[in-house]
Amino acid sequence: MFQHILLPTDGSQLSRDAAERAVAFAKAGNARITALYAKSVGSTENYGDLIEPEALERLMVGPEVKSKEYLGFIKKLCKDAGVHCTAISVFSDTPWEAIINAADDHDCDLIFMSKHGRGGLSSLLLGSETYRVLTHSGVPVLVRPPEIDAKRRKAKAKKRERRRAERVSAFPADIVTVTARVILLRSTMRPGINSFVFFPPLNPSP
Amino acid sequence: MFQHILLPTDGSQLSRDAAERAVAFAKAGNARITALYAKSVGSTENYGDLIEPEALERLMVGPEVKSKEYLGFIKKLCKDAGVHCTAISVFSDTPWEAIINAADDHDCDLIFMSKHGRGGLSSLLLGSETYRVLTHSGVPVLVRPPEIDAKRRKAKAKKRERRRAERVSAFPADIVTVTARVILLRSTMRPGINSFVFFPPLNPSP
Repeated sequence: MFQHILLPTDGSQLSRDAAERAVAFAKAGNARITALYAKSVGSTENYGDLIEPEALERLMVGPEVKSKEYLGFIKKLCKDAGVHCTAISVFSDTPWEAIINAADDHDCDLIFMSKHGRGGLSSLLLGSETYRVLTHSGVPVLVRPPEIDAKRRKAKAKKRERRRAERVSAFPADIVTVTARVILLRSTMRPGINSFVFFPPLNPSP
Repeated sequence: MFQHILLPTDGSQLSRDAAERAVAFAKAGNARITALYAKSVGSTENYGDLIEPEALERLMVGPEVKSKEYLGFIKKLCKDAGVHCTAISVFSDTPWEAIINAADDHDCDLIFMSKHGRGGLSSLLLGSETYRVLTHSGVPVLVRPPEIDAKRRKAKAKKRERRRAERVSAFPADIVTVTARVILLRSTMRPGINSFVFFPPLNPSP
């Protein structure tokens, strides 16, 4: 269904992991990929009041090298998978904007992103660039969480399942039903009321 | 690649539009769909301090009817497209949590959501339930923006393209280059400096 996927990268491990999945996704759907790296022009605070064009050119060598490395990684993945790939790099200090514009300019129908980027997992629940792309994008965005999230969720789900099974085996069915009703009733009470009397039906059904 | 898609619905037009795309996506990828509706048990503020179980049962009739309607819509879409569909409804006042739990419990490998739900487009840049699912999900989330966003972006991109073309045709190439350099240089200056003198090279290359 999706024919042209925009795959932004910031070179981080999380974004590389996402790239691997994106290429597999593109291969499965016979889609092509446009890989994007937004090269930072950097903060001027460190460079003095005014810099010469020659110095500016030197400043751009670093991002250029990174760009080749990061986009090269995706190009190789695509080549190995037999997925058509175009790599573009742009100068921008607002990657989210570069991503949105690239999706428009190149008529992409999906943006495939990692949930987090270079900012990592620690600071935010959702990466800031990913959040901005999500809010501004006119095309669908597929957000891939890091493996660790998937594992954590799986472990939690298993635990919940086990506890549920234990509860059911520990109590006869009617007690389970009554308990469930009490919990439901309790959950509908005004906050601040901390106790109530539960009357079981006088003529319980057999 | 994705084999089992969780498709939450809140019955809103936006979520119905997303459902149509999700079913097409599932069909293309030969995936199956689990449709989910989280029935609200409602705020207790309106119901007095404590309510009887019988009253509680009556309260649940409304959500049950909605659930049938909303899930029925998806089931019909799936049937028409020949996509395997399971419909589930749960009681929850925190739909995002119901969505996360359902994805875990049913081993879904993708959650397909609308960018906005019942809250609509007006209040938030990204729907609050969608945002919460994105932050907590261990499986990838595909977020679909409303059609209006796509159209708006397309119109903007066209306008930008037109302006770019006008600029290029209005100036000779070397002036364009110099202007670009000036803009680039200007963008690297300390904030607060509002003017500078640009010296063109003394021996311009031919």
